[in-house]
Amino acid sequence: MEKTQLQDLLGQMTQAEKIDQLQQLMAAFYSEKAEEKTGPMGDLDLTEENIKNAGSTLGISGAKEAIRVQKSYMENNRLHIPTLLMADIIHGFRTIFPIPLGLGATWDVAAAEKMAEISAKEAAVSGLHVTFSPMVDLVRDPRWGRVMESTGEDPFLNSRFAEAFVKGYQGEDLTHDFMRVAACVKHFAAYGAAIAGRDYNTVNMSERQLRESYLPGYHAAIQAGAKLVMTSFNTVDGIPATGNKWLFRDVLRDDLGFEGTVISDWGAISEMIPHGVAANEKEAAELAIKAGVDIEMMTSTYSHYLAELIAEGRIDAGLVDEAVLRILELKNDLGLFENPYRGADETAEAALILCEDHRQAAREIAEKAIVLLKNEAVLPLKATEKVALVGPAAASNDVLGAWSWQGQKAEAISLAQAFAKDQSVVSGTETFDYFTPSEAAVAEALTLAKTADKVIVALGEADWMSGEAASRTDIRLPQAQLDFFKKILAVNENVIVTLYNGRPLDLRELDGAKAIVEAWFPGTEAGHALKNILTGAVNPSGRLSMSFPESVGQVPVYYNTDNTGRPYESAPDEKYVSKYLDCSNYAKYPFGFGLSYSNFNYSQLTLSSDTMTASESLVASVTVTNDSAVAGVETVQLYLRDLVGEVVRPLKELKGFQKVSLAAGESKTVRFTITEDLLRYVHPNQIASSDAGSFTLTIGGSSVSGLSSDFQLIK
Amino acid sequence: MEKTQLQDLLGQMTQAEKIDQLQQLMAAFYSEKAEEKTGPMGDLDLTEENIKNAGSTLGISGAKEAIRVQKSYMENNRLHIPTLLMADIIHGFRTIFPIPLGLGATWDVAAAEKMAEISAKEAAVSGLHVTFSPMVDLVRDPRWGRVMESTGEDPFLNSRFAEAFVKGYQGEDLTHDFMRVAACVKHFAAYGAAIAGRDYNTVNMSERQLRESYLPGYHAAIQAGAKLVMTSFNTVDGIPATGNKWLFRDVLRDDLGFEGTVISDWGAISEMIPHGVAANEKEAAELAIKAGVDIEMMTSTYSHYLAELIAEGRIDAGLVDEAVLRILELKNDLGLFENPYRGADETAEAALILCEDHRQAAREIAEKAIVLLKNEAVLPLKATEKVALVGPAAASNDVLGAWSWQGQKAEAISLAQAFAKDQSVVSGTETFDYFTPSEAAVAEALTLAKTADKVIVALGEADWMSGEAASRTDIRLPQAQLDFFKKILAVNENVIVTLYNGRPLDLRELDGAKAIVEAWFPGTEAGHALKNILTGAVNPSGRLSMSFPESVGQVPVYYNTDNTGRPYESAPDEKYVSKYLDCSNYAKYPFGFGLSYSNFNYSQLTLSSDTMTASESLVASVTVTNDSAVAGVETVQLYLRDLVGEVVRPLKELKGFQKVSLAAGESKTVRFTITEDLLRYVHPNQIASSDAGSFTLTIGGSSVSGLSSDFQLIK
Repeated sequence: MEKTQLQDLLGQMTQAEKIDQLQQLMAAFYSEKAEEKTGPMGDLDLTEENIKNAGSTLGISGAKEAIRVQKSYMENNRLHIPTLLMADIIHGFRTIFPIPLGLGATWDVAAAEKMAEISAKEAAVSGLHVTFSPMVDLVRDPRWGRVMESTGEDPFLNSRFAEAFVKGYQGEDLTHDFMRVAACVKHFAAYGAAIAGRDYNTVNMSERQLRESYLPGYHAAIQAGAKLVMTSFNTVDGIPATGNKWLFRDVLRDDLGFEGTVISDWGAISEMIPHGVAANEKEAAELAIKAGVDIEMMTSTYSHYLAELIAEGRIDAGLVDEAVLRILELKNDLGLFENPYRGADETAEAALILCEDHRQAAREIAEKAIVLLKNEAVLPLKATEKVALVGPAAASNDVLGAWSWQGQKAEAISLAQAFAKDQSVVSGTETFDYFTPSEAAVAEALTLAKTADKVIVALGEADWMSGEAASRTDIRLPQAQLDFFKKILAVNENVIVTLYNGRPLDLRELDGAKAIVEAWFPGTEAGHALKNILTGAVNPSGRLSMSFPESVGQVPVYYNTDNTGRPYESAPDEKYVSKYLDCSNYAKYPFGFGLSYSNFNYSQLTLSSDTMTASESLVASVTVTNDSAVAGVETVQLYLRDLVGEVVRPLKELKGFQKVSLAAGESKTVRFTITEDLLRYVHPNQIASSDAGSFTLTIGGSSVSGLSSDFQLIK
Repeated sequence: MEKTQLQDLLGQMTQAEKIDQLQQLMAAFYSEKAEEKTGPMGDLDLTEENIKNAGSTLGISGAKEAIRVQKSYMENNRLHIPTLLMADIIHGFRTIFPIPLGLGATWDVAAAEKMAEISAKEAAVSGLHVTFSPMVDLVRDPRWGRVMESTGEDPFLNSRFAEAFVKGYQGEDLTHDFMRVAACVKHFAAYGAAIAGRDYNTVNMSERQLRESYLPGYHAAIQAGAKLVMTSFNTVDGIPATGNKWLFRDVLRDDLGFEGTVISDWGAISEMIPHGVAANEKEAAELAIKAGVDIEMMTSTYSHYLAELIAEGRIDAGLVDEAVLRILELKNDLGLFENPYRGADETAEAALILCEDHRQAAREIAEKAIVLLKNEAVLPLKATEKVALVGPAAASNDVLGAWSWQGQKAEAISLAQAFAKDQSVVSGTETFDYFTPSEAAVAEALTLAKTADKVIVALGEADWMSGEAASRTDIRLPQAQLDFFKKILAVNENVIVTLYNGRPLDLRELDGAKAIVEAWFPGTEAGHALKNILTGAVNPSGRLSMSFPESVGQVPVYYNTDNTGRPYESAPDEKYVSKYLDCSNYAKYPFGFGLSYSNFNYSQLTLSSDTMTASESLVASVTVTNDSAVAGVETVQLYLRDLVGEVVRPLKELKGFQKVSLAAGESKTVRFTITEDLLRYVHPNQIASSDAGSFTLTIGGSSVSGLSSDFQLIK
């Protein structure tokens, strides 16, 4: 449909129809069972007429159901405008991939794009049009449960992933490629900075900090074409995002150039009442529509009050027209006027969902996500060794993680299943609880451990311990697991710990382990992927995208911290430097860190010049050598530091990375081009620009290693 | 001297003399021993001429020495301008009072004023002119070691203490009352918000938050007449305070109306180089003088570079004149031109310092500072009971706390000393280490505990564990003390824990204690004060001015938190509310909390009206009854909540408090007047104003109790 036709369509709509277009319904409204339908209808207090015209729906899935709903909807809708079907497809639809924090650890944007493409395909054939992904909130506090849903603590890395997710979901031609869905970047803005890591809590930071660290991820998704933006639950400088006109009009629309549709998060418009910035639903509706929120999710303040607000002159009717037009444009961008059922297709559903290709992709991506944190020569396992596989996560298929709506644990592969045919690996038969293991289970594990050459102790968080509304003040493993680990360690010193978890953990109590393998929640193919890493069939290549603190008392600890006036680094033994009495300033396992079965050496860092200008780029090259007998993949990381700024600058900032495959003994030269845009930061005037002066460039295999050289930007 | 005379004096000074006037020296420069003098002179790279004219000195004390230095200084100074003698007198000079966090717990501003008055007196007779106090940094993170130096987490309470300190130090007529010293409020600004509680670390917050929560304390001190302001080490929105022109020119001078002298913190001008906002000393000097920093402490960038900067036209010579004039004004305000030795007086020194009156005041104030956190009917002790006094803090005189420059541990009273003549209280003779107690000491304590009716287990932090550069990630007591506590508990269930410490601690592991007495670092009279509380000679009346978290994983936890859109309070058992999976949102011991040996009941809350206007005040009254057989002191606290604001408002804000003495069985009516200024908050336009609408008023004995009523502000 042409833009002018959309305008015509808008012109034909009554005010009531327009307002209803902004309302999102839940799936239950379309239930064929009256009793399922009545509850939500009552909760939202909507009329049959409202429902006929409500512009979008949350949580319907399955081709058959999607087609039925769309057909019935269009028949009931006076102007035959199709509805939009949306859902949370975060790290896979039915084929579940690693949680986003694990995807972040791949440092492989093609993998993330592949994940999004497959997720889109499975969702699209199931009749969905929009996914509420990617979540690109910058995260620094592992107490927050939703760190599992982010790619980590770095604006540059998050931005590259944001782009990849959007490309994977939306493809090149969303209108005609029915195997794609529209992406909704969230949560705008800075939801990841909730005070004390407590979900939904207040966020406070300066505008400069917001623009410098927190906005880049959303901006990258928007520049990649994300069709929607979701509001965040938190306040931004005291005003809930969902009613924050400055944030959505000035920043999102004007500064970041977003032209798509804005949707509230779940119930977030009404939540401005408990937040205490709206006295009632009417005031909440007024704040949200003025801020430019187009679609209302899970509450119905627009349906109830927009007409009244217009009639009273408190809001301009043009605000509603603008919102409706954006929704119609989204429907048009999805080709729904011509093809209201889009990809919904029961045959394709049967063929594609959880197909072998998708499983294989899920396994390969999970392998890339797994991070080898520690290895005192106990991994990879040798075929000749007798290995005991014990612990609560050994036979567990709690491997999908939060936000796996359509994922089925029963379809997931546990580590024990993956090892089932390996005679050298023995596991127990007792059910092993995560929190209160039975004495029998522990006794059986100890018996197995005593006679094994090595013991895999499979530990982890349960899936509900991370995700939304899953903040923890204690970021250690459950006490029973720590106790169990110590018992095993007492009978066998060759302990390999594997971890399923949704956040950086305090792992100090696992110091006795000879190896630690961070597997996150790896998804449907968990066991196969983890087995391949343990056996060396796949050489681990994952790198942390979020720092693991020594303990919760050090939180937040992140690599790209500002320098202080009394830097610890320059005099760690002096008293009056910025440090703790009882702990280092550093992460236990830092950003960018991860081991391999290969050894990589860096040499011959050279710069094409030691000066550059805004128009000339500079090339840094380094030789990376696989100084081992096994092929492996190294993640070569480029960090920059601006030595003197108008504001204090971070000690290091990631500005490039490349994954390099190296055969045993092989060397490669890796090049990075430094352009002036990489040297910009947000100045006190809120504008990103660069300063003439010295920069330190470091290239290495993590945020705490590498070769360095200085160069000058001349202006 | 008249202002015009100061201008004349300025006119007579050479540029070099002016610049030297901005330089602060250390005491060593005036040492009579050449070897003590040479080191600092080399460090600062100053000439004899610079030294002759340096305008102030840090750390000289003793009347004799002060007189000698001043005499020699004025002889050497061409214009005979006296020097200023400054020092850190934080919670007492030689007579040490409770640490400021303990003073905060008195909720008794008269006590704080008395402390400051006595400190000023002892300092003044020792020849000092300026103290670097009060420190009024708002604190929310107990990891930060300098919370001991603040009166706590509340802007209102901190402001009242700020005023009291300034009044106590400066008196009514600083120029002629030689028993007073000038006050220097610090650290401007927001030093208490160091990320992760790590000293000197970056601070980040919005301007609105800065103005709303962090500036009021400094503002109150300035309005009370504080003569100096000290810069903070931290950045404020990316720019180190010491070079932050916006902060010092626009905010401090223009908005807060400060007309006095600004001094850098220790080395803070040069620290802008490691901070990365100045490439070298010259740039650092330029930033600082442009920001309006008058006195340079511990570095010499002004002496080295201001002349050059003026010559090059990079700074205006008027900036130096302005700074010099402010220093001359300060000297004049202290009457130094007429009386260069001021209070310095060896006879008065001998009579006043640590005199019995001062000790008595220190004891009374320490008694008011002690907070009874828990008491399951084991306190007060009864004369007939056999009590064992054990643990590392029992015989310790590590009771002064950090920032006790002239305080002498040997002059302080330990708890064991205080109980020495009580035959019913027995203590051991073995030395008991805080971290690695000997087996003999533990065994002796267990022996004593076994046969006692009750056991006082005296625990604590060592003094160096809080204060500057004393951040901790683990805020529990040392492990050996927790282990010791458990051993004692195993042999005697009537355990009373006393605590000396400089921060809110995680006290979960003391849950088995029947009583917990928080004594802070009580100062010189520690033992006597604590004994009086334990025996009931004094009924405890202290209230926390900073929340004690459940654990470090909950940090920051503070009572005046914003509401969220999904408040825990309204549905604590629901999943999708703002909470933790493993811990409440609440402090273990909240702001305003503290027990008494009396019981206080609140009744009959009445408002003079349920509406008010900007010009009419409203009176809230409540009846407080001492429903017990012992006289006691209740701290009646008034909290307000603005139900709907332009920005999200705190759940509660302290807006008044009164300490009320009640005889056994006595009732009193307590009245608070609510005026419109109490209803103001900083709006998004950065201006404090009030909104028409509903407010909830609560009057009670802590931040988590009380009677409530609503009223309306009509506009």
